[in-house]
Amino acid sequence: MNQDEPVYDIAHLAHVELLSPKPEESLRFFVDVMGMTESGRKGDSVYLRGWDDYEHHSLQLTASAKSGMGHCAFRTTSPQALQRRVAALEKSGRGLGWSEDNLGHGPAYRFSDPDGHKMEVYYETEWYQAPENLRPALKNQASRYQDKGIGVRRIDHLALLASDVRANREFMQESLGGRVTEQIIFSDGSEKGAWLAFMNKSYDVTYAEDSSGAKGRLHHFTYAVDNREAILRAADICLEHGVFIETGPHKHAIQQTFFLYVYEPGGNRFEIANAGARLILAPDWKTIVWNEEERKKGQAWGLKTIESFHTHGTPPVE
Amino acid sequence: MNQDEPVYDIAHLAHVELLSPKPEESLRFFVDVMGMTESGRKGDSVYLRGWDDYEHHSLQLTASAKSGMGHCAFRTTSPQALQRRVAALEKSGRGLGWSEDNLGHGPAYRFSDPDGHKMEVYYETEWYQAPENLRPALKNQASRYQDKGIGVRRIDHLALLASDVRANREFMQESLGGRVTEQIIFSDGSEKGAWLAFMNKSYDVTYAEDSSGAKGRLHHFTYAVDNREAILRAADICLEHGVFIETGPHKHAIQQTFFLYVYEPGGNRFEIANAGARLILAPDWKTIVWNEEERKKGQAWGLKTIESFHTHGTPPVE
Amino acid sequence: MNQDEPVYDIAHLAHVELLSPKPEESLRFFVDVMGMTESGRKGDSVYLRGWDDYEHHSLQLTASAKSGMGHCAFRTTSPQALQRRVAALEKSGRGLGWSEDNLGHGPAYRFSDPDGHKMEVYYETEWYQAPENLRPALKNQASRYQDKGIGVRRIDHLALLASDVRANREFMQESLGGRVTEQIIFSDGSEKGAWLAFMNKSYDVTYAEDSSGAKGRLHHFTYAVDNREAILRAADICLEHGVFIETGPHKHAIQQTFFLYVYEPGGNRFEIANAGARLILAPDWKTIVWNEEERKKGQAWGLKTIESFHTHGTPPVE
Amino acid sequence: MNQDEPVYDIAHLAHVELLSPKPEESLRFFVDVMGMTESGRKGDSVYLRGWDDYEHHSLQLTASAKSGMGHCAFRTTSPQALQRRVAALEKSGRGLGWSEDNLGHGPAYRFSDPDGHKMEVYYETEWYQAPENLRPALKNQASRYQDKGIGVRRIDHLALLASDVRANREFMQESLGGRVTEQIIFSDGSEKGAWLAFMNKSYDVTYAEDSSGAKGRLHHFTYAVDNREAILRAADICLEHGVFIETGPHKHAIQQTFFLYVYEPGGNRFEIANAGARLILAPDWKTIVWNEEERKKGQAWGLKTIESFHTHGTPPVE
Repeated sequence: MNQDEPVYDIAHLAHVELLSPKPEESLRFFVDVMGMTESGRKGDSVYLRGWDDYEHHSLQLTASAKSGMGHCAFRTTSPQALQRRVAALEKSGRGLGWSEDNLGHGPAYRFSDPDGHKMEVYYETEWYQAPENLRPALKNQASRYQDKGIGVRRIDHLALLASDVRANREFMQESLGGRVTEQIIFSDGSEKGAWLAFMNKSYDVTYAEDSSGAKGRLHHFTYAVDNREAILRAADICLEHGVFIETGPHKHAIQQTFFLYVYEPGGNRFEIANAGARLILAPDWKTIVWNEEERKKGQAWGLKTIESFHTHGTPPVE
Repeated sequence: MNQDEPVYDIAHLAHVELLSPKPEESLRFFVDVMGMTESGRKGDSVYLRGWDDYEHHSLQLTASAKSGMGHCAFRTTSPQALQRRVAALEKSGRGLGWSEDNLGHGPAYRFSDPDGHKMEVYYETEWYQAPENLRPALKNQASRYQDKGIGVRRIDHLALLASDVRANREFMQESLGGRVTEQIIFSDGSEKGAWLAFMNKSYDVTYAEDSSGAKGRLHHFTYAVDNREAILRAADICLEHGVFIETGPHKHAIQQTFFLYVYEPGGNRFEIANAGARLILAPDWKTIVWNEEERKKGQAWGLKTIESFHTHGTPPVE
Repeated sequence: MNQDEPVYDIAHLAHVELLSPKPEESLRFFVDVMGMTESGRKGDSVYLRGWDDYEHHSLQLTASAKSGMGHCAFRTTSPQALQRRVAALEKSGRGLGWSEDNLGHGPAYRFSDPDGHKMEVYYETEWYQAPENLRPALKNQASRYQDKGIGVRRIDHLALLASDVRANREFMQESLGGRVTEQIIFSDGSEKGAWLAFMNKSYDVTYAEDSSGAKGRLHHFTYAVDNREAILRAADICLEHGVFIETGPHKHAIQQTFFLYVYEPGGNRFEIANAGARLILAPDWKTIVWNEEERKKGQAWGLKTIESFHTHGTPPVE
Repeated sequence: MNQDEPVYDIAHLAHVELLSPKPEESLRFFVDVMGMTESGRKGDSVYLRGWDDYEHHSLQLTASAKSGMGHCAFRTTSPQALQRRVAALEKSGRGLGWSEDNLGHGPAYRFSDPDGHKMEVYYETEWYQAPENLRPALKNQASRYQDKGIGVRRIDHLALLASDVRANREFMQESLGGRVTEQIIFSDGSEKGAWLAFMNKSYDVTYAEDSSGAKGRLHHFTYAVDNREAILRAADICLEHGVFIETGPHKHAIQQTFFLYVYEPGGNRFEIANAGARLILAPDWKTIVWNEEERKKGQAWGLKTIESFHTHGTPPVE
């Protein structure tokens, strides 16, 4: 394969395993407030999905002493693509081997990114089969539109903290074929953030510098709704349910995402966003680089970025 | 290449050349009502683009005795992908050779689909450079958000009429690597419509049976706005400008597109749609097949499909 | 009182008593699909309200052999206003006397309009007290925003059929102080429809000619949501719940209401609309008169008015 | 008149005279960014209106050495209502006499509120007659929907600063018949803010304590658009035009207004809001009182109120 050709081996972020020290309350949050549906239970985990997630699940909620991310998974675009990614991961020296017994999907190859976040790639998957009461009126959607709570549509992206953004960003490019759509690089050359995309969405996974110096932490993960009004409605619903709103709704300058950040009961940051309006169609998109001064301007419409957005990650630093 | 692997050689629909017997009025329509900007003129053509189209143009408006489509173009994901597509097109026997002198993009390989629509593929392109007055506040968008008229964001898809849907659909799969996301097949096995996607958008090009038996006609082409409210606003603006609204705003059952169909002054059908909320992330998406009875139900919320939607195409049949 | 002064004695449409031959299914429709909450039961009636209706109820759902409207009620702006309206009603000869034992409000003076629709006016009312689980986060709304089903906000208006539009319209003007904001008058002088407002909303009650010649029938009644996107979402929810959508979402030319008309299980037409964006602030608003040709143009964006909209009323004509 | 009866003598806020030390730039702001249209000029003033303002103008922009408000005007519901208000104003001792030669409206009775803001009431008015190019497609709106810039619909409300909120609030109640829908009263009994309504809108004029101790200053005035998405679009347009966004878009807890505050080039604060979704239909609405602790919580979704919102007023304090 010519190194100049873009790689399309990763189809999308498939699921996130979230660790919660308050699993029952977290479950109520995802089901009652976010409007997700449960599709399975196994061990200490409950498996959940948005109404248009086509796979068995996009969220694995696991009871745990600490908050944070258990692992995340990416689905490849073919069995061959999986083989290519496994070869690249093995070459990187970060491979951890195959995991066979997975609820909802086939064999997954496990690995760690340089910061220690546990990840996996797989191809074989179980398409969600909606039970009678969740069968959609239109057969081209995964299940019935959820009219209880916010009704998040599907998983969108994952934001990780890293002690060394550059190392993790390069790993994602080399091992998974990620393309860097936007970046924060300070005038001293230090890389503070990176947004990576695998297909047309403007990003699927991001890294931001962990100011605490800790490793392997989660910044947030995100589900998509269809438009900005749906996010304003989400904020109204969070308000009624007593959910802590950290910041938003507002619009990021970077990636122009219209965001709402809340903390789920387990302490993890969760985002509702309208990913989709803006697509990266150019296969040779030129990375947008933001510098220190631009970042200081705050969000798109001038909102100053709140301090906790730069400090809060899970699990908390001891 | 293993035949089971999805092909990601076509990045997106790049531009449409539209023929108008009323070029001045058509230009006013695209600039004043749709809010597009002009980026060049050459011969009988004016080149136009939506505010977030990253290439030199996405619409080539050409003065012509008849309405219809002059040609359409697809951009490949790499130079190598272009070579692969050219090889496949040559093999198909439908190749027409290279076109070198193109405003806004590099060498293009021209071909015809079985119905005779002129098409081209190319890779090298000229990124749009916004002049001072169109420079965006946020550097991650192609040019300033257009607050005059509807302000369409970018080209989205192309809908063609064909005397033989199956032949054209198979050509698109084999020669360009299109994936059929949805289809209309009647109980007698006849194929009435096909929606093909190249990446994550749920479709980039569609074919519908031309009931007139004519060949090479255009059904419509489409620009995207960000959400449904923007389409309702578009309808209000069309009403004020005296633009003929054929049908909508309403929601298609097929593909769930929220649509507004109008006729531009040259007689061609034009659509404003919110493509983006719904993405096809599954690399092995199972084609959704609609039958005769389902199609008779009309649109998603029960609106009966109006007759002209099945008959009007351009150029008109003599 | 000088006859030129506008009368502000009626504050708003207060509630509608709806008759349903399928009371259990109708109740499920209003609670599960419309997202209304139950605030009481008495006899064959269940009392319901939208989340921002400030009174005890805005809908009285009554089991009945036939569909249609039991009665409707208007709240006056003061006790003195009630006295003035009662005096006017008594003078009209259409008064029916006082009703004392009312759930949720004080003494009501009952009357019939010329077409025989039962109506009442009252002032004393019971403000809704939200129980703990429905208490809103913001104390300036009546109860918690309802995130189950459509979540209609409040009752908006009532549309009645009448064998003689003019007589009923004049009665509303003279007895209640209604102002005619819009009207349909054909070239032969016949009055086909009238929209009457009491305060700033562009209409609170309307009359349309009953083509069947029957008397006392209901065309529809309407609850408000906040914007057009909420109505599109309502259509999606109706689709998922199998609710029959008669027409819409679309925009009326008359009054510019963005509408969605459905039939509740009892057969009565129900509308979800975004009343509020457009207010009539002019105290001397000049009645807008639409003629036959204008009405034939259909709705604002060109949708032809479907036949059933001119024929379906409740109860059905034997 | 019985003192318990609500007064409906003021129909609405009619216009604001805004003083600008940069009149040309302010004019460009209101025309190019806000999408208002000019309807006249006289002396140092340009008269402007939103596309659905039914009167000759709703904004009088006047060149001046200092920023701030020249005067504001309220239209009464009838000639008799005007007489009653003039009688009450004369009785208050704050009347200044009649102004006869007014562009766009008839004789106006001028007065000052206790803080010294100049005001007037009038009834006779000139309805706006749209020229050919601004004639609307639907005859029930004042002029063509403005698809250039933000396209504000109509004037909505006025927010004044006052050294003594209570005195001004009581004056508005007694002299104009305002009803206090919401209020800020601290635990020490001091009144910090008051929202007054004349008809169904939840407020038409507000007073907030001027922390500078100055008198007669303007906090902001507001034009309405139809929904929250229109305000997000307004923020995008302000961003592109380099307009200073002070705060928002966000939702106030008080009155639940979805707001966007910007400074026009003359230094005056201007708001775009979606007034209309929430109406006060209850004629006996119970004033909502917010205390110090509640106010400290910030806006509805938790945004802390920025400092300048409590300090910036026009004209600036020397």
